[in-house]
Amino acid sequence: MSANYHNPVQSVYGAGALSSLPKLLDGRRAALVTFPEARAIGLLGRLESVLQGALACTIDQTRPNPDVAELAGLYEWFWREHADVEVLIAVGGGSAIDTAKALMVANDAASFSDLVAGLAGERPFVPTRSKMLIAVPTTAGTGSEVTPWATVWDRERQKKYSLHLPETWPRYAVVDPELMLSLPAAVTLQSGLDALSHALEAIWNVNANPLSDTFAVSAVRDTLEVLPQLMGQLDNVELRGRMALAALKAGMAFSNTKTALAHSISYEMTLRYGLPHGIACSFLLPMVLERAIGRRVDRDAVLREALSMPLAEAPQQLAAFIESLGVKTRFADYGVGDDEAREMLLHAQGGARGKNFIGNDLAENQA
Amino acid sequence: MSANYHNPVQSVYGAGALSSLPKLLDGRRAALVTFPEARAIGLLGRLESVLQGALACTIDQTRPNPDVAELAGLYEWFWREHADVEVLIAVGGGSAIDTAKALMVANDAASFSDLVAGLAGERPFVPTRSKMLIAVPTTAGTGSEVTPWATVWDRERQKKYSLHLPETWPRYAVVDPELMLSLPAAVTLQSGLDALSHALEAIWNVNANPLSDTFAVSAVRDTLEVLPQLMGQLDNVELRGRMALAALKAGMAFSNTKTALAHSISYEMTLRYGLPHGIACSFLLPMVLERAIGRRVDRDAVLREALSMPLAEAPQQLAAFIESLGVKTRFADYGVGDDEAREMLLHAQGGARGKNFIGNDLAENQA
Repeated sequence: MSANYHNPVQSVYGAGALSSLPKLLDGRRAALVTFPEARAIGLLGRLESVLQGALACTIDQTRPNPDVAELAGLYEWFWREHADVEVLIAVGGGSAIDTAKALMVANDAASFSDLVAGLAGERPFVPTRSKMLIAVPTTAGTGSEVTPWATVWDRERQKKYSLHLPETWPRYAVVDPELMLSLPAAVTLQSGLDALSHALEAIWNVNANPLSDTFAVSAVRDTLEVLPQLMGQLDNVELRGRMALAALKAGMAFSNTKTALAHSISYEMTLRYGLPHGIACSFLLPMVLERAIGRRVDRDAVLREALSMPLAEAPQQLAAFIESLGVKTRFADYGVGDDEAREMLLHAQGGARGKNFIGNDLAENQA
Repeated sequence: MSANYHNPVQSVYGAGALSSLPKLLDGRRAALVTFPEARAIGLLGRLESVLQGALACTIDQTRPNPDVAELAGLYEWFWREHADVEVLIAVGGGSAIDTAKALMVANDAASFSDLVAGLAGERPFVPTRSKMLIAVPTTAGTGSEVTPWATVWDRERQKKYSLHLPETWPRYAVVDPELMLSLPAAVTLQSGLDALSHALEAIWNVNANPLSDTFAVSAVRDTLEVLPQLMGQLDNVELRGRMALAALKAGMAFSNTKTALAHSISYEMTLRYGLPHGIACSFLLPMVLERAIGRRVDRDAVLREALSMPLAEAPQQLAAFIESLGVKTRFADYGVGDDEAREMLLHAQGGARGKNFIGNDLAENQA
């Protein structure tokens, strides 16, 4: 049996890392993809001053959890008007980076419906053109800056697609904690818990391997230590930097394992209850942990190392940790009844990510 | 201030990973670069049977610590006869992989003297052609499978060159602990200590960054735990695998920091006293550790995490660890007098790798 690890992204990080953008562009022109509030908070002005003449156009109308219905027009406009721009710079949270990943690949016809058909598994989508992506996260959580995955939603069909192509790896991740200083408490918390979820899901995962474990263990330990401190000092750039690195390491881990059961459940919670992703994918971590423990000796060992506590107490302590940050950890807390929870869990176990979970009976029967 | 991390190598590891070679070649033909004993120990036969028609030629006369005088003829023959072969597969210890790295790049004239002039800094060497490299280590130590560096010697001029070009990253590292089962005790020990040295040197390094630290900490902890056990059970494939991974992680760390003072000293010890590399770069680790402690608060914290002991005791305990493996830890043990040691240390501090050391007064004055 052999395992694989590969992550080609070049990370540039530290306070002030944003100013390395011109060097990374190395004379190429770039389209900027960011979120609507970027101008009001001064971020767009700062980017314009850093990029100057290298900036070909700005797309600042990205939406949270981008939907195919919203992306279609943007995609076709972008490939019609800016097919010659070599680089996309995505500045924002997961949604801005995911939008840029959807924009970065095209076939000869630059047909968005062909891309969506590929996402839906109806027919293969083979890009013949792609842009270089520089991902600049402004939240510390998604890890999207070091993964090739993008989540794209189709609310009309009640579906969540995962875009992942060899072309959708960012070339560079530019992680500058100064960009995170103004992040509100709620987003800081949701992002941090998302990172914790990525790291734990990379451990209780059938695709886990010793290098993803190395990153995941480090990310769990850092997040457990840093996130509560950061919630008390949102303007502390050192803590922002440490949390950004924890999120990046969690991304380095799950870039090679994908996520597992907690994420599989989260998609349902987001579609049905509109729960923010970071809460949806983390409120059940203690329950999933409980189901993971005792399944595989090697996974138990890595969980013990990551959590630095006896596993018998771990689900309860993890619940206490999450509740101490103000997040409830049971289905009932979100108005989900026992029957619906059971049905949702079964559905989640059968989903693509659910099958990555080591404690999934379905997956074990198939193994 | 910003830091960088990048390692594009795809790692494939686990017992039996060797059999993934045809899949990685994906129809391409390959030249095999290995060591003279590979046939006698059955390795060459196994490779021939795995590679079959994909094998274009075999170079099995690589030498330990390859020297420019020996490489010249091989290089010119290879580029004359096999310029069309797309892939080099290097199977062996650091010397076989380093030889393949020297072979993998050429300018239009395929001139080895142009390459050497580049190494010597006389004039820039710009490759116009390069091969894809698959590195298959048979020792657990060099980390060369995940770095772009190759060490090439010029004994006539008493020099050690470091080849490092963007083209000399391996595409794949195939780490199969089954290939290490027959490694003799002495080589197992030297390789393991080399890995320990890479990991520690990546920590007390001016180029250290949080991602290299993540790998280095994990590699130090694993090596301290696994190497003594492995020395008592050389035929244990699980321990071989864990040591191989520790060496790979140390490689992932120093691929982004380069080495530091202990390696700078080692080159002198190898040139003057013929000391094997793994001993030359590790016997002074306790002395270098002593000089590193207290220099920088953040480095002390990482050293403490890696060594899992109070730093006040660490040099003595590290010396006890290395001596318990049968390796002496002082200059005098190797016949180096006080004056020569002092002179050697000063020379090493001024060397390219010596300047990477945090405890180097020269480097601090420059910073």
